Amino acid sequence: MSTTDGKPKIQFWFEFASTYSYPAAMRIEDAARAAGVAVEWRPFLLGPIFFAQGWNDSPFNIYPAKGAYMWRDMERICAKHGVPLQRPTNFPRNGLLAARVAQVAADDGWAPDFVRAVYRANFAEDREIGEEPVIAELLATLEHDADEVLARATSPENKERLKATSEEAKERGLFGAPSFVVGDELFWGNDRLEDALAWATGKR
Amino acid sequence: MSTTDGKPKIQFWFEFASTYSYPAAMRIEDAARAAGVAVEWRPFLLGPIFFAQGWNDSPFNIYPAKGAYMWRDMERICAKHGVPLQRPTNFPRNGLLAARVAQVAADDGWAPDFVRAVYRANFAEDREIGEEPVIAELLATLEHDADEVLARATSPENKERLKATSEEAKERGLFGAPSFVVGDELFWGNDRLEDALAWATGKR
Repeated sequence: MSTTDGKPKIQFWFEFASTYSYPAAMRIEDAARAAGVAVEWRPFLLGPIFFAQGWNDSPFNIYPAKGAYMWRDMERICAKHGVPLQRPTNFPRNGLLAARVAQVAADDGWAPDFVRAVYRANFAEDREIGEEPVIAELLATLEHDADEVLARATSPENKERLKATSEEAKERGLFGAPSFVVGDELFWGNDRLEDALAWATGKR
Repeated sequence: MSTTDGKPKIQFWFEFASTYSYPAAMRIEDAARAAGVAVEWRPFLLGPIFFAQGWNDSPFNIYPAKGAYMWRDMERICAKHGVPLQRPTNFPRNGLLAARVAQVAADDGWAPDFVRAVYRANFAEDREIGEEPVIAELLATLEHDADEVLARATSPENKERLKATSEEAKERGLFGAPSFVVGDELFWGNDRLEDALAWATGKR
């Protein structure tokens, strides 16, 4: 868990299947540091929220015009921020295991590196981030003990915690990702990161 | 129709029922002038596009979490831009007649004033912009001959033209409002106005 050290704090709510969460995850640490804001990394699952809205797939697949726009928009955004993008051959990928691991990583303080590695694997390297061997390899590359981390990530307690987090997301009014929470204020979308940071520092 | 005078051009596609089109309509003329970009005002109807997606109401009513967020977000955005906001007691209001008039206004070159007046009436003054007397009064306030304009606006030819425009919107891949079109590039959302203007002037 990020400590705030007296700094204003922002919660970064992300879902590994979410395209726009990718540039946000790549940008947030530098942007928050520059703004003097601490980041709390909150992995959660959008699936249950979408399902409650009647969607059993990504809205970008359900609504083709929106999907076509999103992929072109992602190209522009990633180019603007110098973030590599390769459209995944499989979308959306299941981010459940990665989210469970990210929760452990947040406890241990290495969420930023792990989260970025998963997003890169999904959206720049077209890898199957829903599969355990891929996550294990990413953990090994980051010099973590994959077996040990995966055992903690898939413990009943950690599974329940992620469910509770996703329930908390719904209670806070989240309906998409990425979302940024500052106190009771909700900001939705990669393009609102700067607004959320400004809100956290009192520049409204 | 806006003449470009050799300036780069942006198309501003708006729908009178669209909340986020309101701040965009209030900002675009000044922002475009500052960027040296000409604006073509394109009223269109989102209803048929939403209906084809299976929605018979505003998505902000269909998805309550999204709606709650949108109204709070509109408060922040309007405060930021100094645009007055009063949440309409009736939402969404039917923008059909106003769009027909806006098309006539665009032909005659007075679209900006009329469009802003309608948005203000809907989102700052809580007036029933779907009703003809309200539109007639706005026209009179802008010193137009309301009877003459309304007759042109509701002519069979003008009605067909608006239908064709809404069909063109769908063909261009529009799925929401406001949208900005620069050549073949589509930008969706009030918060993309600056990106669209930058694209138009080659600053990418």
